[in-house]
Amino acid sequence: MSDDSELTSLDKLGEFGLIQHLTEAIELQQSSSVLGIGDDAAVLDFNEKQCLVSTDMLVEGVHFDLAYVPLEHLGYKSAMVNFSDIYAMGGKPTQLLVSLAVSNRFTLQALESIYSGIRRACQIHEVDLIGGDTSSSKQGLILSLTAMGEVHANEYVRRSGSRENDLLVVSGDLGGAFMGLQVLEREKAVFIENPNSQPDLTDYTYVVGRLLKPEARKDVIECLSDLNIVPTSMIDISDGLSSEAIHLARASGLGCRIYEEKLPIAEDTFKVCEEFRLNAPTIALNGGEEYELLFTVSPSDYEKIANHMLFTVIGHMTNAKEGYGFITNQGERIALSAQGWNAFLNNSAPE
Amino acid sequence: MSDDSELTSLDKLGEFGLIQHLTEAIELQQSSSVLGIGDDAAVLDFNEKQCLVSTDMLVEGVHFDLAYVPLEHLGYKSAMVNFSDIYAMGGKPTQLLVSLAVSNRFTLQALESIYSGIRRACQIHEVDLIGGDTSSSKQGLILSLTAMGEVHANEYVRRSGSRENDLLVVSGDLGGAFMGLQVLEREKAVFIENPNSQPDLTDYTYVVGRLLKPEARKDVIECLSDLNIVPTSMIDISDGLSSEAIHLARASGLGCRIYEEKLPIAEDTFKVCEEFRLNAPTIALNGGEEYELLFTVSPSDYEKIANHMLFTVIGHMTNAKEGYGFITNQGERIALSAQGWNAFLNNSAPE
Repeated sequence: MSDDSELTSLDKLGEFGLIQHLTEAIELQQSSSVLGIGDDAAVLDFNEKQCLVSTDMLVEGVHFDLAYVPLEHLGYKSAMVNFSDIYAMGGKPTQLLVSLAVSNRFTLQALESIYSGIRRACQIHEVDLIGGDTSSSKQGLILSLTAMGEVHANEYVRRSGSRENDLLVVSGDLGGAFMGLQVLEREKAVFIENPNSQPDLTDYTYVVGRLLKPEARKDVIECLSDLNIVPTSMIDISDGLSSEAIHLARASGLGCRIYEEKLPIAEDTFKVCEEFRLNAPTIALNGGEEYELLFTVSPSDYEKIANHMLFTVIGHMTNAKEGYGFITNQGERIALSAQGWNAFLNNSAPE
Repeated sequence: MSDDSELTSLDKLGEFGLIQHLTEAIELQQSSSVLGIGDDAAVLDFNEKQCLVSTDMLVEGVHFDLAYVPLEHLGYKSAMVNFSDIYAMGGKPTQLLVSLAVSNRFTLQALESIYSGIRRACQIHEVDLIGGDTSSSKQGLILSLTAMGEVHANEYVRRSGSRENDLLVVSGDLGGAFMGLQVLEREKAVFIENPNSQPDLTDYTYVVGRLLKPEARKDVIECLSDLNIVPTSMIDISDGLSSEAIHLARASGLGCRIYEEKLPIAEDTFKVCEEFRLNAPTIALNGGEEYELLFTVSPSDYEKIANHMLFTVIGHMTNAKEGYGFITNQGERIALSAQGWNAFLNNSAPE
């Protein structure tokens, strides 16, 4: 988008023209999608399956900063965040609705970039974009997405099903997205000081990627199914491991214990933590926007899980009286707290 | 809310506390609602029915002005607008998701008022509130609602099914909501001039009510079912009769003809039009936010429809070559145009 003269102002298209333009290339892939965009409502058909629905709203200046989030990545991530909620119920995302409001500083090409990211996420996860709403805003960009998915009748995984002694398991590694945010905020501060500076992010590819282009863990759900493991409870990590572990424990009427030595932290994340003089385990506990899956399994599933490259057993569930504990490498017990990214205090991660 | 000292600032509650507070009184009523608020996704079960989904976003300063829209009415209307889309497919709304973003000028009591209106709409239409998202915004209030509904398999009514000579029928009466807006905008201007003025809306109850508290036409769908009438196409009137009639005609590959003498306009609406020196039929054609249903039926259904108090036959579908015509009381033919309330030019009605 180097040449501004090619950009199209939104008021030239009108709402109907805009929706038509942004959605004309969309083809339905799911057999449950009977009717997509273009009528008052979409029509879905779930035979012998149950339908999962989840929604998230992302607000410019609250959930994202366009100074360092490319629009295509924003679209991609906003879809992924919703798919992640469906996977966190043990389901498969199948349809997506996209509503967006934009101020007149956005051009058609800007919206195309957002939709391009959304469409790519949909392609990867075989999800049909079936509807939405587009309007203007007084200030900034607001995205509101609703994902629908399917699950075999009564096989969905709640937050509340874990039992005492169940193993607490997480996919992937933690803390990367938070450190990616630190790097980008530092670069933004440098840029504000000196607008001619060019950021060199070569050493930070991993952590910045974790923030800007998270992947909803379809592979984890498929793998659990292959291993014949049904988690007793599950959640995705949007607000930080600590906060989500407490969610699972509280919903199940239990306590939990997490071990510092077990926390999965990537080498790249460790390095960036060192550079920023931050304690990596603390970041892994409290950094949000990971979209990894946190779940509990019966102790009898230990063998299947323990050495699997996708998973790390980081602790276990306890009875409620033991509370929410974190055991340091020195054997000290610290109370876990749900610091999270509180929506009304700080930046907040979409659920 | 006369005493500001009783108001609760949102940052005291945090996101989780806020959602819990706003949703604690919600009970599920629909057998298809397997799991509601509180997990990563809601779970729905539609046996032998198809599921309808529709979404709408409402932005402060674009779709509503809090200077004259009470928050409870705003909540009520935002739910109604979504239910209306489900009825416009011939379905029955069953579930609702509510996402909202608010700036810190809003208090807990303000959000409670919005939710109170949403809940009342849900009660009237027997709809379950099953999920949503709450976050902060940089400026103003943004609501994004997604309604789900059910319809017997393949009995949904599209926009595209009308045939040449089908009767064009509308429920209720038209133009009231637009005139309600004119009245409220005039009162707002008076108030800005003289903040001590007290508006007297006694003479404008009907038109103001049409704007602030529209009713989604559940009764129309039930009545059509009782009459054993399946509309060949249907849409709800959000952008104005003219615009929606063209939508139906275009989607069906047809033209249409509307007669001025047939337009249903309430006595109260006529009076306010006279006071504002506006032409009532023009307002009935182009005023938006009605949420009446516009549909086509086979000419063989004429007897059932013609004298029914809920309905007015306002014209018929023609072949495409005849275009979109409006026949005045003088017998003159004028081309209908989709003036609507274009989202990027003016205030826009939620779809």
